[in-house]
Amino acid sequence: MNLKIAVLPGDGIGPEVISQAKKALYAIGEVYNHEFVFEEALMGAIAIDKTGSPLPEQTLNLCLNTDAVLFGAIGDPKYDNNPNAKVRPEQGLLKLRKELGLFANIRPIKPYKSLVEASPLKREIIEGADFTIFRELTGGAYFGAKTLNEEGTHASDLCEYSEEEITRIAHLAFKSAQNRRKKLTMVDKANVLETSRLWRRVVQKVGENYPDVILDFLFVDNAAMQLILNPKQFDVILTENLFGDILSDEASVITGSIGLLASASLGEKNALFEPIHGSYPQAKGKNIANPIASILSAAMLLEHFGLFTEANVIYQAIEKAIEYKVVTVDLKPDSKFGTNEVGEFVSNFI
Amino acid sequence: MNLKIAVLPGDGIGPEVISQAKKALYAIGEVYNHEFVFEEALMGAIAIDKTGSPLPEQTLNLCLNTDAVLFGAIGDPKYDNNPNAKVRPEQGLLKLRKELGLFANIRPIKPYKSLVEASPLKREIIEGADFTIFRELTGGAYFGAKTLNEEGTHASDLCEYSEEEITRIAHLAFKSAQNRRKKLTMVDKANVLETSRLWRRVVQKVGENYPDVILDFLFVDNAAMQLILNPKQFDVILTENLFGDILSDEASVITGSIGLLASASLGEKNALFEPIHGSYPQAKGKNIANPIASILSAAMLLEHFGLFTEANVIYQAIEKAIEYKVVTVDLKPDSKFGTNEVGEFVSNFI
Ligand SMILES: CC(C)[C@H](C(=O)O)[C@@H](O)C(=O)O
Ligand SMILES: CC(C)[C@H](C(=O)O)[C@@H](O)C(=O)O
Repeated sequence: MNLKIAVLPGDGIGPEVISQAKKALYAIGEVYNHEFVFEEALMGAIAIDKTGSPLPEQTLNLCLNTDAVLFGAIGDPKYDNNPNAKVRPEQGLLKLRKELGLFANIRPIKPYKSLVEASPLKREIIEGADFTIFRELTGGAYFGAKTLNEEGTHASDLCEYSEEEITRIAHLAFKSAQNRRKKLTMVDKANVLETSRLWRRVVQKVGENYPDVILDFLFVDNAAMQLILNPKQFDVILTENLFGDILSDEASVITGSIGLLASASLGEKNALFEPIHGSYPQAKGKNIANPIASILSAAMLLEHFGLFTEANVIYQAIEKAIEYKVVTVDLKPDSKFGTNEVGEFVSNFI
Repeated sequence: MNLKIAVLPGDGIGPEVISQAKKALYAIGEVYNHEFVFEEALMGAIAIDKTGSPLPEQTLNLCLNTDAVLFGAIGDPKYDNNPNAKVRPEQGLLKLRKELGLFANIRPIKPYKSLVEASPLKREIIEGADFTIFRELTGGAYFGAKTLNEEGTHASDLCEYSEEEITRIAHLAFKSAQNRRKKLTMVDKANVLETSRLWRRVVQKVGENYPDVILDFLFVDNAAMQLILNPKQFDVILTENLFGDILSDEASVITGSIGLLASASLGEKNALFEPIHGSYPQAKGKNIANPIASILSAAMLLEHFGLFTEANVIYQAIEKAIEYKVVTVDLKPDSKFGTNEVGEFVSNFI
């Protein structure tokens, strides 16, 4: 297979972990005879520094014309702590999601057997947990109109959803549930929000096409609690953009480290793959960032193109790295291995 | 002291747990020579059934003219699963919060020593955790304009905040931090939401009056993770309405049971106290609901009026009940004690 892949390393540890993901893909390419052509481009704080824009035209065009995007991380404390900044790294990511139409963000959550002890949760709570979060990614308060009055004393964010936006991701989530344990949990705040009530109605309607899937509903406050009390109850979780942002980061604790989770963001035509951790600026350039999430996002990319054998080899390599404790300090405080070494181990295993 | 207390038992297990809270207050009144006069009124699904309104005029007037409100729980599945219902129990609670001006919801989180094992989190994670969440309660998406188009295919919720709304709760939170470990963590989504950026600016400004308090910021997705990874890092958490709803329910897992958490909702003139658990309709009338949260809310009421000795006796009674395992099945699956027995034990201890 020939794939043209846009690579956006971004900020902080982004470049370091992305280069390990590329290494793994090169190795897969050699062994399985695929040609992966990588083209790098700027996004995030680094793009602002160099071009003034968090998503330069050139980067967007590249992404629109590739088979897939491999993305690192964005964000820089100099913007976070300045609520007055007009241009911010996150705008680049949000614009990219919107322009590529990446409406579904998919995050699988499953603890690694050999890492069960690394979680703050008790073994009996997380062992056997295995679910996937479908987060809507191009709607809601992220993209609704924002206002700030002239005096700077009153602000607003509009959360909006249309039937169409809900329908398309609901179908994906139901299909995924059909291939899994046939349970879909819709998370919302329908006792308060009008958009949540729309979500409930639309998801109920879409559900009629999937009679073999059991649909249930949880309020988001309760869901935030249930994720920790009893994560095994979940199979597929479907939710809107902001709730999905919160719940999927929360759910990362089940695996023991956010350095172990990747996500796929899918649209009609485009697809983007990324580790769910952020840019972690404190770790930049120190060779201590965990590259596993980024390598996993490369495996999700392979799966997306039907290369299941190849993806599986990567999963196995990661399992081995964890089993042999070739891991970074977030997983083993006294580890002697760094970002590079873990990446080398994985690509050598392939 | 003479206190006139409006009692709103509400739905589901509300009436059962509230009557244990009243029992404890009666006992306190006798021993310490206070006169507590209780007046009951309808709110929630039961009020809809009986009067058509979730917050009858009479209930509101009573609450406006008492020293404090003791509230049970509201909600009924017949409304939750009907996204088309025009009148809903929650509207009563939201209206009451708004009309009484209860802008600050305060939820202390601290695990009981003898219950550490009941938490899904590991002992070393939660032991020593002790923080308070300040949740803004009368603003944000809960109260902003809602729309649904005629075809029922497009909905919106507006999240709005003004400087004034943020300032008043920020002062309360900073004062609380001054009396504690002097750390305030503001939780928001300032990398995406305009309202969050307003929150950051205003809280930074208010903070200048409290130079002894260290102020830091967390994005809500990260906060949802940090609460579980390392709850000991927190002292006072300040956040807007919806984020506070999600995070405070999530934080309840630290104590092992949501049946152990109470909250105070404060305004300029009024105050309301409630267990944070919901109406838990499946348990209604079975004498299995945990009354501790409700009894704790009575203790918070006492503290609010400066009756610290009295409140402390209740805390001690609860500690004892837990130590002697006079607890409901949520805390000890094979327990022979029910709602009534736990309530009796506590009031007899007083
Ligand atoms: C960086 C930020 C805008 C982003 C989001 O909130 O969507 C991130 O938290 C994520 O989950 O991908
Ligand atoms: C019942 C519901 C409207 C309410 C809320 O969301 O505020 C509840 O969850 C709470 O936290 O008190």
